[in-house]
Amino acid sequence: MNVLIVYAHNEPTSFTSAMKNLAVQVLGGQGHNVSVSDLYGQGFSATAQKWDFITTTGGHFNYMLEQKHAAKLDLAYSPDIIAEIQKIKEAGLVLFVAPVWWFSVPAILKGWFDRVLAMGVAWDSGRIYENGLLRGRQAMLILAAGGPQDYYQENGRHEAVPQQILHPINHGTLAFCGFDVHEPFVALNVLGAGDVGRVQMLKDLEYRLQNLLSSPNWLVHHD
Amino acid sequence: MNVLIVYAHNEPTSFTSAMKNLAVQVLGGQGHNVSVSDLYGQGFSATAQKWDFITTTGGHFNYMLEQKHAAKLDLAYSPDIIAEIQKIKEAGLVLFVAPVWWFSVPAILKGWFDRVLAMGVAWDSGRIYENGLLRGRQAMLILAAGGPQDYYQENGRHEAVPQQILHPINHGTLAFCGFDVHEPFVALNVLGAGDVGRVQMLKDLEYRLQNLLSSPNWLVHHD
Repeated sequence: MNVLIVYAHNEPTSFTSAMKNLAVQVLGGQGHNVSVSDLYGQGFSATAQKWDFITTTGGHFNYMLEQKHAAKLDLAYSPDIIAEIQKIKEAGLVLFVAPVWWFSVPAILKGWFDRVLAMGVAWDSGRIYENGLLRGRQAMLILAAGGPQDYYQENGRHEAVPQQILHPINHGTLAFCGFDVHEPFVALNVLGAGDVGRVQMLKDLEYRLQNLLSSPNWLVHHD
Repeated sequence: MNVLIVYAHNEPTSFTSAMKNLAVQVLGGQGHNVSVSDLYGQGFSATAQKWDFITTTGGHFNYMLEQKHAAKLDLAYSPDIIAEIQKIKEAGLVLFVAPVWWFSVPAILKGWFDRVLAMGVAWDSGRIYENGLLRGRQAMLILAAGGPQDYYQENGRHEAVPQQILHPINHGTLAFCGFDVHEPFVALNVLGAGDVGRVQMLKDLEYRLQNLLSSPNWLVHHD
């Protein structure tokens, strides 16, 4: 299987980087063809702009409708967007590896969602969720978060469990485009866990990754 | 009162722009001192980078800990971040005016959260929620979303109401930093609503804005 890892951290010694390296190692070791979109390394531009399109409709500028227009013109997007679209189209599994910032992903990855998961490419009118244009592919979030574990409860300080916090991404973004979505791996309290705790989290992730394709644990599966 | 509008759209004829202009008009008309951070107009950089800091700790690069380090050094951030921090510090009310993209805000605004709401400036260890460093200020989301209204139900296609979708921002970002958070104004189905529908939505927003400070409708209020 072709596996794409979309990675959003700029520090090679970070825990997030260690999770990314582990995913490369485990899935590569299983014989899969693993490629990495290193968003910081590529200098990926986060911000949706008019120049993301080779040509525009010329009317009132609505980014979504320009995406649709460009899709009809055989992917008339800027080269960085086209490169990412090609990688998704070829992938059977896409892993997103990033820290959690503000109950979400860093802007550089949010911008990847905004710019790459284009109308006409990843979804369209009437082509969402079980009919999404990326149907048949799998996706999974692999995230590192701060803060004590007991904050992540409906009656905790954050007033939500991780699944609720990640609903905009797992459901509103990935499932929306048709992906079958694995239960996320979320390492909580990474800074506070200490070396022993972090080693254990990487072991837990290794176990998840080893069994990911043979024994999937679905959050969303489009029958 | 000083009112800061953080605005994230690049089309002056957009509905989002109309909402921003209305906020300037209504709150300015009430005698408040209104300023606008036009993120697209300013070319605001969305991506958290090492060069956001005048000097770094020199160790393993953790963005959050570098923010804290820079805060201690009398705001040793890049000038664009300092300018936004000064605006927030002077503001009694901050309005965020943007479209909803992927159940969240566009990356350029997510990047504003990532870069401006810095550890040591907006929050700190033990200084979150009711003890957040931006305590005493008010905030409100003013958003334009697509898709039919009946999608935004727990048993609808999006499997969540707008309040759940916006929890990462209203609670996990704004309330986290200490803001008292107004119920958001979310215009749904903006593309499908037609001109009559859109005019009505602007009237509804005008009413909310006229009464915002005299009759606040709190989503989160730190007593």
